[in-house]
Amino acid sequence: MSVTTPTAPVRAVPEDFAARIEAALARRPEVEAHVERAVAAGVDNIFLVGCGGSLFGFGPLRVLLDRSPIPCFTVNADELLTRRPAALGARSLVVISSTNGGTAETARAAELATQVGAQILGITQDPASVVGQACPELVLHQGIEAKQVVLALLGWSLLDALGAAPEHAEAMTALQASPAAFRTAIDEMDADLDRVAAALHAEPVVYVVGSGPLESAADTLAMCYLQEMQWKHAVAVGSGEFLHGPFEMVTEDLPVIVLTGEDTTRPMGERVIRFLERYSDKVHVVDGARLTLPGVPEAMRPFVGTLVMASTIVGRLAEHFEAWSGHALSERRYMWKVDY
Amino acid sequence: MSVTTPTAPVRAVPEDFAARIEAALARRPEVEAHVERAVAAGVDNIFLVGCGGSLFGFGPLRVLLDRSPIPCFTVNADELLTRRPAALGARSLVVISSTNGGTAETARAAELATQVGAQILGITQDPASVVGQACPELVLHQGIEAKQVVLALLGWSLLDALGAAPEHAEAMTALQASPAAFRTAIDEMDADLDRVAAALHAEPVVYVVGSGPLESAADTLAMCYLQEMQWKHAVAVGSGEFLHGPFEMVTEDLPVIVLTGEDTTRPMGERVIRFLERYSDKVHVVDGARLTLPGVPEAMRPFVGTLVMASTIVGRLAEHFEAWSGHALSERRYMWKVDY
Repeated sequence: MSVTTPTAPVRAVPEDFAARIEAALARRPEVEAHVERAVAAGVDNIFLVGCGGSLFGFGPLRVLLDRSPIPCFTVNADELLTRRPAALGARSLVVISSTNGGTAETARAAELATQVGAQILGITQDPASVVGQACPELVLHQGIEAKQVVLALLGWSLLDALGAAPEHAEAMTALQASPAAFRTAIDEMDADLDRVAAALHAEPVVYVVGSGPLESAADTLAMCYLQEMQWKHAVAVGSGEFLHGPFEMVTEDLPVIVLTGEDTTRPMGERVIRFLERYSDKVHVVDGARLTLPGVPEAMRPFVGTLVMASTIVGRLAEHFEAWSGHALSERRYMWKVDY
Repeated sequence: MSVTTPTAPVRAVPEDFAARIEAALARRPEVEAHVERAVAAGVDNIFLVGCGGSLFGFGPLRVLLDRSPIPCFTVNADELLTRRPAALGARSLVVISSTNGGTAETARAAELATQVGAQILGITQDPASVVGQACPELVLHQGIEAKQVVLALLGWSLLDALGAAPEHAEAMTALQASPAAFRTAIDEMDADLDRVAAALHAEPVVYVVGSGPLESAADTLAMCYLQEMQWKHAVAVGSGEFLHGPFEMVTEDLPVIVLTGEDTTRPMGERVIRFLERYSDKVHVVDGARLTLPGVPEAMRPFVGTLVMASTIVGRLAEHFEAWSGHALSERRYMWKVDY
């Protein structure tokens, strides 16, 4: 049911919002030590492994590693277990991600990686979880922003160790500034995100489009937030696919959220937006280029902006949906309730 | 609007259905010559590049190449152009796929590959198209089955040249038998596919789930056939993601099509089916294990079955949707009609 005022006020930003990100930054020596050890032992390829939001959360790192001299594969944990690609072996670095650590197949993927003698680094909030227990080495974090910062530290450290990060120092400067950049992003976009949720909270189906480092942020918004936590039909589409099929759904009534940033794939989103602005009255662009990102060097805006968009901004948009719909983000039909 | 009998009879299978696949098999020496030349020149990695259905059509090949000793990346053409991964270079083999050859960004991706000195092989129906013109070497085909056979020949030939295909001879035996296997699949599944379309043609939203080589067959069905050609909301979800978010949408009323085969990822689909059978009355399993695949050696059933599922079966299901909905698969709002 569409309402004209929010059902409840949007959640307050947690008191420790910036502190959690600072804590992630403090993990830098730990992350670098893991990477140095792995690279010294010999690494021929990198696997980024998880499920659902933890898999989609690799989006920015996956694209950062486009410049890596060794290949990087982003794979669902169960796909890894059942397909067992030949590239997975003793000279692989396997990054295992599970925010709450409770995903059984992600823990099994860590066990498989152990069996083949790979280097393993687990990223989780809970060292006592099944995933935490299955990983010989862990980097802990609290919150989705902190996870993006840990993954970014990992990515830049890897690139540096592999001789592919001439701008490493600037990236570290940018990450040091990121707690304020994440926090100001909420204030800067809150009114816009409120308008998006006001307009779309009662729509039966919402399309979400993104490219490059934000392609899987579209998956996060569609599958984790709208489907899982709002019980709303949502269709995630890569910007590069939108005009090759999904765009035939567009009428003036089709609600589409386009996520864009300042990364090199921006023209892909702009092309989709140009099309949508001609044919739909329900286009909502959430654009990382609008963020001020205080303290972030100009050249690092695309990088930091993407981290913010892929975590804080899509998460905050979900909180605005919650405020308008009255459907708590914590409500579940099955998760944590039944076996599956 | 739901109807109780089809609006029109389902399309007849083309007279030249098997002949097109035979013609693809006759390309084997040509494909092998391309691969031998590329491997002799030195290949460090493989890029599979396309958009929409042509990108999704790489699904079986992508998973076949899991056993490759060199990495394989499956990338949307515009993502490749805007991200320019470091791995793309003179020692890359770039496979460019565009069924009708009209996709401008796929042609530009071929041009980029040319600029960096990569080996390029184009797969298209039309040598006079922009993609056909942009590729120095082409393998031509007619129809979606023929494309799967050409890609399979390419994959096995590559694996053989890279020393990773001990079962190459058996795979070739299986492909030789494939024209009959593709054709009988239609007769064997037609009644089932008719029932799926009868049940779902008037549903406002359909979820489509697949894993491994069929994960992108779910994309094909959802984005190319249901969204583009039936103007029906459709949500493609990897089987490995379904129980980490999307499953919260499940009620007894949620229509879900699960695509499964005999490949190693089958347990992922089975797990989703077990869940769905408890909570939804609208689960439709389309299972490649049911196909007889005459003449295909037992060990090659998963491989050939996947080719059939990813082309003939999802395409035939679309034809049954067309018959029930009365919405012609050729009808478009924008494609080929407006600039975008």
